[in-house]
Amino acid sequence: MKLDALVFDAYGTLFDVHSVIARCEQVWPGRGAALSQTWRAKQLEYSWLRTLMGRYQPFSVVTRDALAYACEALGLALDAAHSDALMQAYCRLDPYPDVPAALAQLRAGGRKLAILTNGSPDMIDPLVRHCGMDETFDAVLSADALRTYKIAAPVYQMAVDRLGVAAANIGFVSSNCWDALGAKNFGFNVWWINRQDAPVDRLDARPDGILKGLGELPPRLAA
Amino acid sequence: MKLDALVFDAYGTLFDVHSVIARCEQVWPGRGAALSQTWRAKQLEYSWLRTLMGRYQPFSVVTRDALAYACEALGLALDAAHSDALMQAYCRLDPYPDVPAALAQLRAGGRKLAILTNGSPDMIDPLVRHCGMDETFDAVLSADALRTYKIAAPVYQMAVDRLGVAAANIGFVSSNCWDALGAKNFGFNVWWINRQDAPVDRLDARPDGILKGLGELPPRLAA
Repeated sequence: MKLDALVFDAYGTLFDVHSVIARCEQVWPGRGAALSQTWRAKQLEYSWLRTLMGRYQPFSVVTRDALAYACEALGLALDAAHSDALMQAYCRLDPYPDVPAALAQLRAGGRKLAILTNGSPDMIDPLVRHCGMDETFDAVLSADALRTYKIAAPVYQMAVDRLGVAAANIGFVSSNCWDALGAKNFGFNVWWINRQDAPVDRLDARPDGILKGLGELPPRLAA
Repeated sequence: MKLDALVFDAYGTLFDVHSVIARCEQVWPGRGAALSQTWRAKQLEYSWLRTLMGRYQPFSVVTRDALAYACEALGLALDAAHSDALMQAYCRLDPYPDVPAALAQLRAGGRKLAILTNGSPDMIDPLVRHCGMDETFDAVLSADALRTYKIAAPVYQMAVDRLGVAAANIGFVSSNCWDALGAKNFGFNVWWINRQDAPVDRLDARPDGILKGLGELPPRLAA
């Protein structure tokens, strides 16, 4: 297996969404976990449904819509200031503790590194800057350029086209099992970061490897 | 508004999925609600993801896969006999109490009646027979004929084509808000049955009407 590029999902893979939960908890004590769970589930659901319907909206719009739904479902009064504050939290996530060192090691390996995310540029670009990773990646690729979302194949194809590397020579890393399996079905070599000890999704594929965190990837590639 | 046909979603709209929960509860006491919730969520997720990936499998396969995932996630040991028994429960649901009388009234109105469902024929046909509704509908249309799932537009188009009625003259009824809004975006007149008092999904449309149950539809159409 010759890997010329490593491509990473963003939210939950490189960047810890826990600070969103903490921000929810500040606004509505005791409801942070339930809110963030419903918010995330609806965010994904709307991204898939909009792609299936052919009614694209940027991930920032989908994310704000999902927040409004989740608050209404949980009986939480959401005003514009809270909505703005919670959306801002998405632009100021921290990387997981083992991510910066792992990325530095992987970068030293001479491979191209890229992000491939559903996040629209208005969300992902400020986040990469916030984390001081402006120089870390050869490309930050957003599905927004195609106005469609994962796990539609054109999103994965974008990494092939923009990096100039064949799918068989790309390693893809995601903490979202469905994303990992979409990438595997597409033809990438895939590691699933399974921090929650969740089952593998039943979607016609298995990841090539399962990691507990990104820190496990450099030694695996060196082995 | 001139409606020449009324088209109904099946699961949760006409047919009460509660008996599946009850069957889960028999097998794993105290876990029925959690299992059925995860099962249903994964069933929908896999239907959307498979459509986006272009890797169709019939709804019976998707449903069985979702059951396997849900049991593993909840730490419940699922053997083949339990899997078969729970899948069988989907073929023996009861209609909601107000459904038979409402369908009889709607049928007396002279409009065509049809089911439009994700359910594959191996699931929906036995269920319609079980409920004694063989003669109730002019057509039982399954997305399986197209090897794609709601809320892709071709599924709604199938009702137009097979019933020979323009979208603007079709009334569509679903208890799944995303399905109702997909149908609304497609061009149907739409009633959402909101039995759980849930928020309206944020998907660029509003249902034309919101009902607490199908029994409310005949008087609304007569008004």
